[in-house]
Amino acid sequence: MNPLSTTDRTALTRSKERGQTDRAALYEVLDAGMICHLGVIVNGSPRVMPTGYGRVGDTLYLHGSTGARSLQANGEVCVTVTHLDGIVMARSTFHHSVNYRSALVFGTPRVAEGAEKTAGLRAITERLAPGQWDTAREPNKKELAATVVLALALDEASVKMRTGPPLDDEEDHLLDVWAGVLPVKMTFGEPVPDPLLRSDIKVPEHVRLRCP
Amino acid sequence: MNPLSTTDRTALTRSKERGQTDRAALYEVLDAGMICHLGVIVNGSPRVMPTGYGRVGDTLYLHGSTGARSLQANGEVCVTVTHLDGIVMARSTFHHSVNYRSALVFGTPRVAEGAEKTAGLRAITERLAPGQWDTAREPNKKELAATVVLALALDEASVKMRTGPPLDDEEDHLLDVWAGVLPVKMTFGEPVPDPLLRSDIKVPEHVRLRCP
Repeated sequence: MNPLSTTDRTALTRSKERGQTDRAALYEVLDAGMICHLGVIVNGSPRVMPTGYGRVGDTLYLHGSTGARSLQANGEVCVTVTHLDGIVMARSTFHHSVNYRSALVFGTPRVAEGAEKTAGLRAITERLAPGQWDTAREPNKKELAATVVLALALDEASVKMRTGPPLDDEEDHLLDVWAGVLPVKMTFGEPVPDPLLRSDIKVPEHVRLRCP
Repeated sequence: MNPLSTTDRTALTRSKERGQTDRAALYEVLDAGMICHLGVIVNGSPRVMPTGYGRVGDTLYLHGSTGARSLQANGEVCVTVTHLDGIVMARSTFHHSVNYRSALVFGTPRVAEGAEKTAGLRAITERLAPGQWDTAREPNKKELAATVVLALALDEASVKMRTGPPLDDEEDHLLDVWAGVLPVKMTFGEPVPDPLLRSDIKVPEHVRLRCP
């Protein structure tokens, strides 16, 4: 695996100790998420939209309706995936922070077609709902035509993370203030069946597996 | 409360039924989050970074180091706050979706100074860690000088949400496929004290309150 490239915009200028330069770290952050934030420029202004994504090897896939404004931009994008892992509470307000893992991917996506388009949709669906692609009805021609799939090469990316306790100034250590980390987790609740679901269909194993 | 303005970029072009035009919905989405995704244009390219934020009335506050690239942009920004509420699993892959609440705020921030700067920092800290501002040591002059606080008016914003079950095509209702929603929640774990914490300091009530 080749390391992540360093370019002007992926070289960390601050908190360099939080940077990760191996590709495995990038995969790990991307493969732990369900939605990303897609940044585009529309009429000269930045626009950031939450959306699904998937990864196949060194390509990230995004999708949307053919009518979606954010996919018409046709230019450079920045895709950011963030996991909030903890609230870092310090003895001083200044040293409050968060534990997190984040990845920024830069590039100009191309439109995926044919088999790649379907593979991209599969990756996006499976990221959100693992096991569903082989269970649910696959997209038909009309649905495929209504969907744009964009492919973004993982050529230029940066990964940043923070872990561990607060880092207070030494002279604050004697303060009468609690300090530590409040862990944050994304968890799933009990599945809620569609009110129109046939009563003989039970929650499948691959969904049940994600529940508490 | 005046309703949210509608401009070219906040008018929803798709899934209009998911749009909210009252300001209360905007407050609700913003006040339920801990981090936002800040979109800026740097050297002509979009850049999306996770960061903390806070709200006071109709102003959103962001902060960062005076050295941070994203705060030097000095131009228009888009701040997006997203809550993922559920994975919507349909009988067809095409109708897979997510339940979510999101807010996009557009504008050109100004630098907050003096009392407003401190109020902004307070709002950001309290959004992340309610109750901490009155507990921890307040920022000193040096720390304030090292921090930039940006103020963004909530003048131009859009709010979008999806709730409820999957919306499958009627002809798919007979398929032998489970359909429903897997709820997603952000939860807190047990607080982890700083290894350097004085042993006589217990987890304070305002932190304990957020725990399971």
